Amino acid sequence: MRVSYRKELEKAARRMILIHRTDTLIRLIIRTIVRNLKVSYAGVFLYQQEKKVYVLTVSGGRIGIKIPAGLVKLPPSSPLVKFFLDSSYQLDGDNYLIVKKIKGWLRRKKVKESSRYKKFFTELIQQLSSIKTEVALPIFFRDELLGILILGEKLSKKRFISEELIFLSILSSDVAMAIRNASLFENLRLQLEKNQKLFLQTISALAEAIEAKDKYTIGHTERVVDLSLKIAYQLRKMRKIKNWDKFERDLKVAALLHDIGKIGIPETVLNKPVSLTEEEWKFIKKHPLIGVEILSPIKNLKEVISAIKYHHERYDGGGYPEGIKGKKIPLIAAIIAVADAYDAMISDRPYRKALSSNQAKKEIRRNKGSQFHPQVVEAFLKVFSNGR
Amino acid sequence: MRVSYRKELEKAARRMILIHRTDTLIRLIIRTIVRNLKVSYAGVFLYQQEKKVYVLTVSGGRIGIKIPAGLVKLPPSSPLVKFFLDSSYQLDGDNYLIVKKIKGWLRRKKVKESSRYKKFFTELIQQLSSIKTEVALPIFFRDELLGILILGEKLSKKRFISEELIFLSILSSDVAMAIRNASLFENLRLQLEKNQKLFLQTISALAEAIEAKDKYTIGHTERVVDLSLKIAYQLRKMRKIKNWDKFERDLKVAALLHDIGKIGIPETVLNKPVSLTEEEWKFIKKHPLIGVEILSPIKNLKEVISAIKYHHERYDGGGYPEGIKGKKIPLIAAIIAVADAYDAMISDRPYRKALSSNQAKKEIRRNKGSQFHPQVVEAFLKVFSNGR
Repeated sequence: MRVSYRKELEKAARRMILIHRTDTLIRLIIRTIVRNLKVSYAGVFLYQQEKKVYVLTVSGGRIGIKIPAGLVKLPPSSPLVKFFLDSSYQLDGDNYLIVKKIKGWLRRKKVKESSRYKKFFTELIQQLSSIKTEVALPIFFRDELLGILILGEKLSKKRFISEELIFLSILSSDVAMAIRNASLFENLRLQLEKNQKLFLQTISALAEAIEAKDKYTIGHTERVVDLSLKIAYQLRKMRKIKNWDKFERDLKVAALLHDIGKIGIPETVLNKPVSLTEEEWKFIKKHPLIGVEILSPIKNLKEVISAIKYHHERYDGGGYPEGIKGKKIPLIAAIIAVADAYDAMISDRPYRKALSSNQAKKEIRRNKGSQFHPQVVEAFLKVFSNGR
Repeated sequence: MRVSYRKELEKAARRMILIHRTDTLIRLIIRTIVRNLKVSYAGVFLYQQEKKVYVLTVSGGRIGIKIPAGLVKLPPSSPLVKFFLDSSYQLDGDNYLIVKKIKGWLRRKKVKESSRYKKFFTELIQQLSSIKTEVALPIFFRDELLGILILGEKLSKKRFISEELIFLSILSSDVAMAIRNASLFENLRLQLEKNQKLFLQTISALAEAIEAKDKYTIGHTERVVDLSLKIAYQLRKMRKIKNWDKFERDLKVAALLHDIGKIGIPETVLNKPVSLTEEEWKFIKKHPLIGVEILSPIKNLKEVISAIKYHHERYDGGGYPEGIKGKKIPLIAAIIAVADAYDAMISDRPYRKALSSNQAKKEIRRNKGSQFHPQVVEAFLKVFSNGR
């Protein structure tokens, strides 16, 4: 290799492929160019689809000539963009642009005699000088001008040699592919986020609709989700929770759907304004298993389903439906059990008045280790002591 | 550039970044190597995380020496893998492997006197000759051996020169990054698919649970989804449907949730075994708007919500809730209307017997253009004439 910067830039081009954030990507490429070609600054105008404009997103400089990101915008009709999009302006057939070269063209007879050329190149020079650009190269992906790479003058004030320009052209095609790659990645990630949000919103809406069947529990689901998450955040400070992201997601979904089985309980039983008979209680106690049955065809909800199944188990084994105890009860179920019990206590019921928050907390504390998982109760109490 | 194949391979390396399927990627790189280096064949062993084994996934050859993909597998303990993972075997410090070089080492005193070396290199030679490999290069991403690139002998039977090997090393690091990039993409895409499935399965389960409230309509939702999709597939052959993938997805979700509003109707009304009073009918007719209300907080379900809202509108404007007509009724709603009506007719109701399939079809045809969208009716009839 004859030119020293070349290896560095090739290395950077290679690294680009694994950068899936456009802004990080461009920062890398600019830093590498500034460092290796020893120019006063380098920047990239990046096309923004929605706004139909080229925005100077990042620009790095060595000697303080730094243009703030996002401030400079070029519409597709501006001379700098038009030069690359309309080959009739590329008088020498090269697709890179050097200020000195354009100044030379302005002295040509052909240009002097064409008012179109004269006007265009004069405006182009003005535009380039306003952003202190000495050299500009297009970043094409196929026929699409994704962006424009701009360079300030060399610190040595020397001219750019043709080998440097050819190499920058190659580099800019690498940049194009990396930008395309990153934006595909960003799109996919955005879609994933949108989908996850859609999933949660939809089951929230459905859970709320189902909750509306039971007129005594309005807002209950939302409050249980909220409190369960807060307990989990405290719990996480006290002990290791494996695979936290999944745990949090599962807890949220399980809390949302913990009473889904109530859809199988007749409204007359749910809304009965007096105490329930033993027979009716038996019916109510079926709701965890009805919930399991509803969700059982869904393979990816294993942890959620088992949390719904066991959210009425007791730490001492006296709960339902199976009477399992202690650490056999999934942690998510144990968390929901506390949040569910607390919210039930602070709500009016047809057959009793609501407890105060303090009375309910005392009740939960009193049942630590008998009804409730001791560590979960501690986390629950911390939620309140941390000024909820 | 002094070597002619180099430019070609660099071009291929550059193209790799945009290939997000590992198998396509490897096919490209193998084809390029075989063509430019003129070797009898080239192949890539790719590490499969789940199976903890290196599998020769793709291999291309010029002269019929073609190893079937997936047949040859190497455990991490095999000599070829160990050579790259354990630098103590790389006697000359180079990370590429040439059969001739290894044969030379076997004649060295140092190797002859070490039983470990002798055994290892003898086995290595055997392994390489069994897969007809002349040269092998590691595909490293950081410390991870993602794969091994293997090359058969040159068609000219000449030796590989060191410049070719150095270049292949550089290329293999490009391949590593491209593989990593592609597998990140594949993971993301897989996750997206899993999420979409989870979403559909969950709302199916919830819709079914809600449907269970109305004991006269068991299986109705599933059948409406099924028939609606079949109508849409026929309709697509008859007219252009914009943004088909989204249309199909929205139709599926809307058909699943079209009766979601019934959750707001008392069970006593839904399950009444005799004809409904006018008052009760008014209640039933609210279900599209209750459905809209339930789902309204969800931004990404706009088309779905409007389909649910209008699935009881009539083409002539005599439907509910708004009495809109003709093309103002969203196409998805018009499709669900036909599927819904057909399925209701062929089902028993408390106050009437089911119609036969033929009677129901006749009824739909008779109401073409009055109750139902004419083109949707045509598509509906085609579903049956195509031998359903």
